[in-house]
Amino acid sequence: MKFTAERATLLKALAHIQSVAEKRNTIPILANVLIEARDIRLSLTATDMEIAIVEDIPATIVTPGSVTAPASVLYEIVRKLPDGSEVELDHAGGDAQLDLRAGRFSTRLNALSVDDFPSMVAGDLPHQFKLNSAVLKTLIDRTRFAISTEETRYYLNGIYLHVTDGETGGLLRAVATDGHRLARVETELPAGAAGMPGVIVPRKTVAELRKLLDEAPDEIQVAVSDTRIQFTIGPVMLTSKLIDGTFPEYERVIPSGNNRILRVGKKDFSDAVSRVAAISQERSRPVKLALSRDLLVLSAISADQGMATEELDDNRVSYDGADMEIGFQARYLNDITDQVNKDVEFVFADSAAPTIVRDVDSPSALYVLMPMRV
Amino acid sequence: MKFTAERATLLKALAHIQSVAEKRNTIPILANVLIEARDIRLSLTATDMEIAIVEDIPATIVTPGSVTAPASVLYEIVRKLPDGSEVELDHAGGDAQLDLRAGRFSTRLNALSVDDFPSMVAGDLPHQFKLNSAVLKTLIDRTRFAISTEETRYYLNGIYLHVTDGETGGLLRAVATDGHRLARVETELPAGAAGMPGVIVPRKTVAELRKLLDEAPDEIQVAVSDTRIQFTIGPVMLTSKLIDGTFPEYERVIPSGNNRILRVGKKDFSDAVSRVAAISQERSRPVKLALSRDLLVLSAISADQGMATEELDDNRVSYDGADMEIGFQARYLNDITDQVNKDVEFVFADSAAPTIVRDVDSPSALYVLMPMRV
Repeated sequence: MKFTAERATLLKALAHIQSVAEKRNTIPILANVLIEARDIRLSLTATDMEIAIVEDIPATIVTPGSVTAPASVLYEIVRKLPDGSEVELDHAGGDAQLDLRAGRFSTRLNALSVDDFPSMVAGDLPHQFKLNSAVLKTLIDRTRFAISTEETRYYLNGIYLHVTDGETGGLLRAVATDGHRLARVETELPAGAAGMPGVIVPRKTVAELRKLLDEAPDEIQVAVSDTRIQFTIGPVMLTSKLIDGTFPEYERVIPSGNNRILRVGKKDFSDAVSRVAAISQERSRPVKLALSRDLLVLSAISADQGMATEELDDNRVSYDGADMEIGFQARYLNDITDQVNKDVEFVFADSAAPTIVRDVDSPSALYVLMPMRV
Repeated sequence: MKFTAERATLLKALAHIQSVAEKRNTIPILANVLIEARDIRLSLTATDMEIAIVEDIPATIVTPGSVTAPASVLYEIVRKLPDGSEVELDHAGGDAQLDLRAGRFSTRLNALSVDDFPSMVAGDLPHQFKLNSAVLKTLIDRTRFAISTEETRYYLNGIYLHVTDGETGGLLRAVATDGHRLARVETELPAGAAGMPGVIVPRKTVAELRKLLDEAPDEIQVAVSDTRIQFTIGPVMLTSKLIDGTFPEYERVIPSGNNRILRVGKKDFSDAVSRVAAISQERSRPVKLALSRDLLVLSAISADQGMATEELDDNRVSYDGADMEIGFQARYLNDITDQVNKDVEFVFADSAAPTIVRDVDSPSALYVLMPMRV
């Protein structure tokens, strides 16, 4: 195998690849990238056996062939080559090392046999549809913060992507919850997605996918089976196993009788939450919301440090429900307001019941927040 | 005590202050800032008993007085206040809490008695001189990387600042070493510094001082006794204990007979070192320099990953000593080249002997590097 490629092109692909490759060296071949030079196409592949990422890049192939080499070292070296370099990779075959040359620099990397590189079979992916990449970003950004990190509740360690009926037609929904808060975002059902099974996309897949979306074309391809999901984002193909579990019937958690409505500017609110929460060093940082007609008083207490309070009055708040007090974790409040465009709406029942939170400008997203005692 | 101050002014001072205040809460009062409002002047003080920092800021004093409050909480809160806020601090005296108000926000912080706040007495500081702040930055930047972190060799845990004779007059010298490398930088002796004792300025003091120098006026004041050093940087006064130990006779470590001279562009050299060192995951990352007439070949080996090599030829290197090979830690090489302006000069004796490194454009700095086996 022998080819040359531009340093910038190779670097971009290796950046994607090395992030999936295993860092812990328990199974050495999983720390390697598979490099395949075929005719006019160069493919790079990495997998941790849960996720596989394959990227095609332009290269000048001199001799077709394939080899595997340590992904992170290769990435570090290519990253440190001068901008504009032409990189040559050369492998004599068999047990030979992989030679990389760029100008007067050269490296000889220990290669592992291509035969040992595990292939993650995607299998048949019967459900295929196109999705706008900005829409997919929104589905991810507005739900991923609520993904549970509790390993025992493995069926909550991802985003639940599924099809449901809306008032005006089918919807594709993304839902995540950790038992303290729930995030649900939906979009019009893409053609071809009807009939796809509900799937739980693992946290790590969500993270890798989200990174790739930063430089995605407008439209990406999604393909789904009962056990796999595959995203094709320009020259990159990400295939992932799905979480084998049943996502809870989350609709039961969403309250329907709440009717006390608070509206407040997202920035006014989140800044005030951050300020009053700064009094507390606790991880949970509880913040109390005291509500009366067109007045919101936020406060927090710390036994060690003292207390803090901030008033948002009728210039900035509208509320006409009954007077009430309710507490939430500061971080949970701000995780939601971070996703809100301009004005945020809270719909309360009482101080002990789940609260609904919405972006006033974006009804496709809905959040549920459990209160905490304050 | 009652005063108002601008949020930006208060924030800047608290940023300096809270960095010195103790983070670990073993002695609560040391986590506090002492706030003293006298007539037209407001002073903020923090100390960890090794370093004290006092900063004067403009404020509108309504009632003079003093109080102490948690430094990091106060900093976090002021940081989160809206830009342009007017901040009012109000303390009724005695055991009362400290009230802070800004717009509709208010906080009540637990205060501790001013009487418990330890004063770090500077004592008599007989040696006083002025120093250009850019010169002091250079003295610090070109030596601090070589400060030892081995606590058992506490006398190496700082920069040794002392007076010596140069060829054309007195010099003020800064020296640091960790036994593997040594950095020595000198400047013309400032008026008033003659006769000052050699002092070892602790690492933490160096770090705090260096931060303050980023926004320093051209000229700063230095005052020294046998046990204390004090820097006055505009409105900020930093007083520090000195390390009570004897700095080794470092001159003995500086070789005098070295005569094999290598000159190379700093960027060419450090980029090549980074590239070849990328092959190794070891912390020490040894790099071998193989020298022959006007040719430098850098190489590194990793049992796991392979090897890497780069040639710098007569376009970029000049060397006319005997052929030789010598190894250094990659990080130690780059710590020095980071301080070099354009061209770096190595003066070798042989592959086992200490090597002298210089910035060709800046003869006031000298570095010594111990080789390692490769």
